[in-house]
Amino acid sequence: MPVSRADLTDLAECAFRATGVAPQDARAAAKGLVLAEMMGITTHGIRRVSSYAKRLRSGGIDPHAQISVEHVSSGLLRLDGGNGLGPAVAMRALDAVQDAARDTGIAAVFCRNSNHIGALSPYLWLTAEAGLACIMTTNATPMMAPTGGRKARLGNNPLGFGFPGVDGAHVLLDIAMSVSSRSRIRDAAAAGKPIPEGWATDENGQTTTDAAAAMAGLLLPIGGHKGYGLALCLDMLAGVFSGAAFLSGIVSLGDQPDAAQNLGQTIIVIDFARMMPKDEAKRRMTQVAKVLNCTPRSDTDMPVRLPGERAIASLRRCEADGIEVPNVVLTDLRALAAGAS
Amino acid sequence: MPVSRADLTDLAECAFRATGVAPQDARAAAKGLVLAEMMGITTHGIRRVSSYAKRLRSGGIDPHAQISVEHVSSGLLRLDGGNGLGPAVAMRALDAVQDAARDTGIAAVFCRNSNHIGALSPYLWLTAEAGLACIMTTNATPMMAPTGGRKARLGNNPLGFGFPGVDGAHVLLDIAMSVSSRSRIRDAAAAGKPIPEGWATDENGQTTTDAAAAMAGLLLPIGGHKGYGLALCLDMLAGVFSGAAFLSGIVSLGDQPDAAQNLGQTIIVIDFARMMPKDEAKRRMTQVAKVLNCTPRSDTDMPVRLPGERAIASLRRCEADGIEVPNVVLTDLRALAAGAS
Repeated sequence: MPVSRADLTDLAECAFRATGVAPQDARAAAKGLVLAEMMGITTHGIRRVSSYAKRLRSGGIDPHAQISVEHVSSGLLRLDGGNGLGPAVAMRALDAVQDAARDTGIAAVFCRNSNHIGALSPYLWLTAEAGLACIMTTNATPMMAPTGGRKARLGNNPLGFGFPGVDGAHVLLDIAMSVSSRSRIRDAAAAGKPIPEGWATDENGQTTTDAAAAMAGLLLPIGGHKGYGLALCLDMLAGVFSGAAFLSGIVSLGDQPDAAQNLGQTIIVIDFARMMPKDEAKRRMTQVAKVLNCTPRSDTDMPVRLPGERAIASLRRCEADGIEVPNVVLTDLRALAAGAS
Repeated sequence: MPVSRADLTDLAECAFRATGVAPQDARAAAKGLVLAEMMGITTHGIRRVSSYAKRLRSGGIDPHAQISVEHVSSGLLRLDGGNGLGPAVAMRALDAVQDAARDTGIAAVFCRNSNHIGALSPYLWLTAEAGLACIMTTNATPMMAPTGGRKARLGNNPLGFGFPGVDGAHVLLDIAMSVSSRSRIRDAAAAGKPIPEGWATDENGQTTTDAAAAMAGLLLPIGGHKGYGLALCLDMLAGVFSGAAFLSGIVSLGDQPDAAQNLGQTIIVIDFARMMPKDEAKRRMTQVAKVLNCTPRSDTDMPVRLPGERAIASLRRCEADGIEVPNVVLTDLRALAAGAS
């Protein structure tokens, strides 16, 4: 039985409120995670409520966090997340930076004392729905080595771009800097299957196709030194210059589940409505979609898609038909919302 | 015999002035190309004077271009390059956006009616020397297909990040979105050698290790759909929302050497001095270098470097010892400077 967006959001909100999170922050976080679920990003969707709740209860995340925003100039904001619930911190940052960008044309917010914020796609989608473009990143627990190194020094930091399209056909890119995700390697290891060359190294820093060995090793970045450089520059924005922890200064959740991570995020928002008339922007976005969707195909059965096209189609389906959530996840959510567990 | 920076800059300036370019623009472009040469980016260095001069003479680039900058809001600038010499347009954009960022903390310039601007590294280095951070891109002639497609729709658009470091040890990342450059494939084809799997496709869109077949085909992006998405989002910034040409709307220089390309560039500059005290920024940048340079190595003979570390070392060497320029390049430059072409 599919669940409606409203019911699932209420349930997630109640689950967070049961840990002591303030209503406004619980609501904002629930909204973001349900959006991710609807976009088909189930690894970063509603399942995260339970892991976040665990950290809220153990003190790893502060349910009573005060989030504060400071303007350091007309276009630059500093946000202190107070070790609060990640998606709530990100939603507050998003609201503040959108307001500033309406004034100055471009604005950026740099967040410190934050936590895991889930996928970037929901925030990119919300910004695009508001008619604004967005560049966004966060840092994360170290899982990659710099080129030439064999120890984890960099998070698999994601980079997001969002551009408002015609009638909701936004361009949304949300990618991490690794060739493959750790969860795909975990799945291969569980199935006893090998992984392709170039995905990961073993614990000695040698590339491996043995999924189990890769689970003890590190992820490899896209394009070798290019992905290393990108992951580093994203941490420069999200961590180094926001005042958050960075690189191997970020403590692993596995090692210290009760310690604050002090993650950082950066969101840059641009109001392109200042740059050209609405009709011209519409004409150009229509042309982008046409050029790409109509590219002659390598495989006639496989369409050429825009980044975000599949996620937005999934969102529309869930809006119309409700959201399919596995029973075990729903049961868990209901128990959390009832204040049990 | 090494040439001094001053002499090489004078020579390049004279070569541009001989085509009719105004002194200020000729000087700015010469400065940028000599910097690229000194940073070891010789494919985008002083050799480009001759190809740019050819287009200036044929009318593909307008030597008498008027470059104009318009403030659309406190932090957003639109620049019309007037089909002028690319590096001169980029230098003008860089000056304008740096001034704006000093006021607002963050500013962006969007350039249209521009041309090939060379490597991004010189602009990133100049911004970092001014104590500012920079995110920069340009679009380019289509050379890549979107994921699932088999025709060129996207340029191998570069992405640049620059962050000011301690005592000139800036972090400078300047990468294109392809796994390998076309010049490396050309070298392999000339030597009759194969290329690695994953670098390129043949003319039918199938991946190939035959370098000659790859020269008739397309470059492959880093990380598959990730590199496709990145190249597209960079064109959204540089082309779509700047008012320039974009995607396959960019005419190839080979096909139409005398036509204006109407390329676009975007430069975002951030004044991080607003974000934290100088000492704190210094402490953090020192820690970044320490963590990465001291990462245990995969190969004891290969150091772990920061992006830009090698280019900056090359720049320092050339400042001290002069620049090694092949005789054939110097002879060509002198002929151009003498107005002979």
